[in-house]
Amino acid sequence: MRIEVVAVGTELLLGQIADTNSAWLGEHLAGAGIASHFHQAVGDNHRRIVLALRTALARSDGVIVCGGLGPTHDDITREAIAEVMNVPLRRDESVVAAIDALFSSRGRTMSPSNLRQADVPEGATIIPQTKGTAPGLICPVGHKVVYAVPGVPYEMADMFDRGILPDLRQRMVERGETTGVIASRVLRTWGMTESGLADVLADHIAGLDVSPSPSPSPSPSPSPSPSPSPSPEPVTAGAGGGATIAFLASGIEGIKVRITVRADDDAAASALLDDEEARIRTILTAAAGDIVFGVDDEAIEHAVARALSVDGLTIGLAESLTGGLASSRLVNVPGASHWLRGSVVSYASDVKFDVLGVPVGPVVSEDAARAMAEGARRVLGADVGLAITGVAGPDPQDGQPPGTVYVGLAVDGRDTEVTAFSVPGDRARVRQYATIAALDLVRRRLGRRSQPLR
Amino acid sequence: MRIEVVAVGTELLLGQIADTNSAWLGEHLAGAGIASHFHQAVGDNHRRIVLALRTALARSDGVIVCGGLGPTHDDITREAIAEVMNVPLRRDESVVAAIDALFSSRGRTMSPSNLRQADVPEGATIIPQTKGTAPGLICPVGHKVVYAVPGVPYEMADMFDRGILPDLRQRMVERGETTGVIASRVLRTWGMTESGLADVLADHIAGLDVSPSPSPSPSPSPSPSPSPSPSPEPVTAGAGGGATIAFLASGIEGIKVRITVRADDDAAASALLDDEEARIRTILTAAAGDIVFGVDDEAIEHAVARALSVDGLTIGLAESLTGGLASSRLVNVPGASHWLRGSVVSYASDVKFDVLGVPVGPVVSEDAARAMAEGARRVLGADVGLAITGVAGPDPQDGQPPGTVYVGLAVDGRDTEVTAFSVPGDRARVRQYATIAALDLVRRRLGRRSQPLR
Repeated sequence: MRIEVVAVGTELLLGQIADTNSAWLGEHLAGAGIASHFHQAVGDNHRRIVLALRTALARSDGVIVCGGLGPTHDDITREAIAEVMNVPLRRDESVVAAIDALFSSRGRTMSPSNLRQADVPEGATIIPQTKGTAPGLICPVGHKVVYAVPGVPYEMADMFDRGILPDLRQRMVERGETTGVIASRVLRTWGMTESGLADVLADHIAGLDVSPSPSPSPSPSPSPSPSPSPSPEPVTAGAGGGATIAFLASGIEGIKVRITVRADDDAAASALLDDEEARIRTILTAAAGDIVFGVDDEAIEHAVARALSVDGLTIGLAESLTGGLASSRLVNVPGASHWLRGSVVSYASDVKFDVLGVPVGPVVSEDAARAMAEGARRVLGADVGLAITGVAGPDPQDGQPPGTVYVGLAVDGRDTEVTAFSVPGDRARVRQYATIAALDLVRRRLGRRSQPLR
Repeated sequence: MRIEVVAVGTELLLGQIADTNSAWLGEHLAGAGIASHFHQAVGDNHRRIVLALRTALARSDGVIVCGGLGPTHDDITREAIAEVMNVPLRRDESVVAAIDALFSSRGRTMSPSNLRQADVPEGATIIPQTKGTAPGLICPVGHKVVYAVPGVPYEMADMFDRGILPDLRQRMVERGETTGVIASRVLRTWGMTESGLADVLADHIAGLDVSPSPSPSPSPSPSPSPSPSPSPEPVTAGAGGGATIAFLASGIEGIKVRITVRADDDAAASALLDDEEARIRTILTAAAGDIVFGVDDEAIEHAVARALSVDGLTIGLAESLTGGLASSRLVNVPGASHWLRGSVVSYASDVKFDVLGVPVGPVVSEDAARAMAEGARRVLGADVGLAITGVAGPDPQDGQPPGTVYVGLAVDGRDTEVTAFSVPGDRARVRQYATIAALDLVRRRLGRRSQPLR
């Protein structure tokens, strides 16, 4: 079963919003063993939405069209689907009632424009709305199908799980398709470049390319360079379970190594992923030490939480360069209140002096980073103090060029250490790199060997 | 001239990264008066990249393919383009030398896999790399063209400006096309829902739909509901300059009202946008007051910076719920050090008590918000103190449900005020809404009437 995602909205083409829905849908389709070989985006234009849907139906078994179901005049996905189905739109009174009820429950009256959301192509099945006002649609087109969901991410996700996925599984059964799974696992690393990772793993990847299923000890290829031939794509990997490896530099999320396998069921896929993960961890550790800080959705802040929890430590931050970015990452972790005391964002120099007790002097310096880390421990009453100071740019500060970063780490019962390094990029990237580098330092210094939270 | 963007990378289809490059390219193509009616994403699969390129070439005049030029084995865009051009790849020694020089300048040695980045389809022109190792490519296909750029956003952007845009303009001249511009302006609002905005502007939009160019006083349509017929899409709007309006809810960025016009040159487009912006501001102000906080790229933090600068005030924050998110937004503004003192991220209750002097008691309350705001002013030595406390969820706190937010605002010489409200969504969305709502409060209380920074 091959499903193409079509995102509708001129704002996507004009670049006023990034298309995160297609990414979410692609991830969850793959998780269900459904291939998604192409995504499209198209504007709020009737003729071109129709063309995009026909193009997608021609090269896929079905389409999920996302967006253009809203209440405003530029939401015309309903009309386009009706033309592709060659049927008229009919106003569905049950949907009208549902929208009316939703507004009443919020103590508001339904606006006239919301009525358009009750127009349904003849022959389509409704996916009832629970979070928003627009219903989803299941629209048969010959033996293929067009699913329509709203562009609001949490409405889209809810309707995919509740309405689309069950319908897709039913169709796969009817087609006699094995509902195998394509499973993927991401190892998140910090400390090596993307091409450095690629070179370290080149022999291993070359071995995967030639063997359909991972062998306990892949025979190194004669050439150390990666195979120049197109590598198998995860979505088309043989049922033998041959793993594929890909790399992705992701800023504050680190540099990701993605392992993808295909298997008959989740258990088999999980076993294949475990084997491959173990092999890759061995190779990376031998080459560069403990650079894997997390797995899948485990961001650097989760790694810090784990490192602190091992010994039941609390942390307090002193941020200058990053302006609160580091602490705003840490509060993403559920239960952060158990180990996060807080952060003193000392953007003005005299706040560093007066609140954190930093000696008057250059604030982008080893001494300032040390005093900030110890000040954060003292002021916030934490076991661990983490300080980040540096130069975001574009101009130098204290004679230091943009990208200069000092990270101070004060731990109860240890000597305070300061690490200095330089990161590339503009203001935003310097802050992102400084944040992940500082948080990774906490992980390395406090954590036992990084293990996935499973 | 119609250009289709094709983003290459299995990670896009598997949803491990959102495609921000296509958004950037779409925005900059439109700014140059070049239509982009479709975007595609395709995986690291040779056959399907070829198919995506051929599909794009069939419905557009040219293609910008983004990604798959990297050094690793899954970067195969070069091979796919060569097949579409029906030519072999040749290793370009000038590119080899450039890559070698780049590595040397960084004191590193070129890795073997980087050599693949020197493979160029026969007949293609090179866009020399300045920031990365992969060159861009200009590949003629009959009378059409395929441009290839790396997926690294800042490398992509640099090559678009330096190599692609000049080539596109030359082709438009050769085609005798008027290089008119499609210009867009976004009014960022906070305080009304998307459908509320749509209803308030419905008559105005209906007037735009029927008149090719904006009339000083658009005749209200008989029906208050938006025209059910497909609205003109910006990219196809008549040269008459007829404006089109679209809405976009963008979380911490507010709810956007996008105005798009087409004109012969930037000056004419700017005049049309000025007229339309004035009309819409008048309608919105009459309906809901001062809800427009920014224009185009002016985020809420820029509005706060403007509001503070009017009277030369400084601000200090006390953040609990938002964990540093509000201050990390404020440091995005160049020159923030002139008015931002810092933030006390008091995540633990006793940090609120000990550092900010909040009376011991419930920390999600009007009293706590007031004391936090005054504590932030005192501790950070600021003219204005802004406090944000509340419940991110999923569990209630201090007997208050998730989504409860208290914002305290302490201003030198005024009574401290506390505003309580409730926002929907999960932990992340609650924090985002709380942050923009709190920063918008600063803008409304301190700012003169919001004017665009131009």
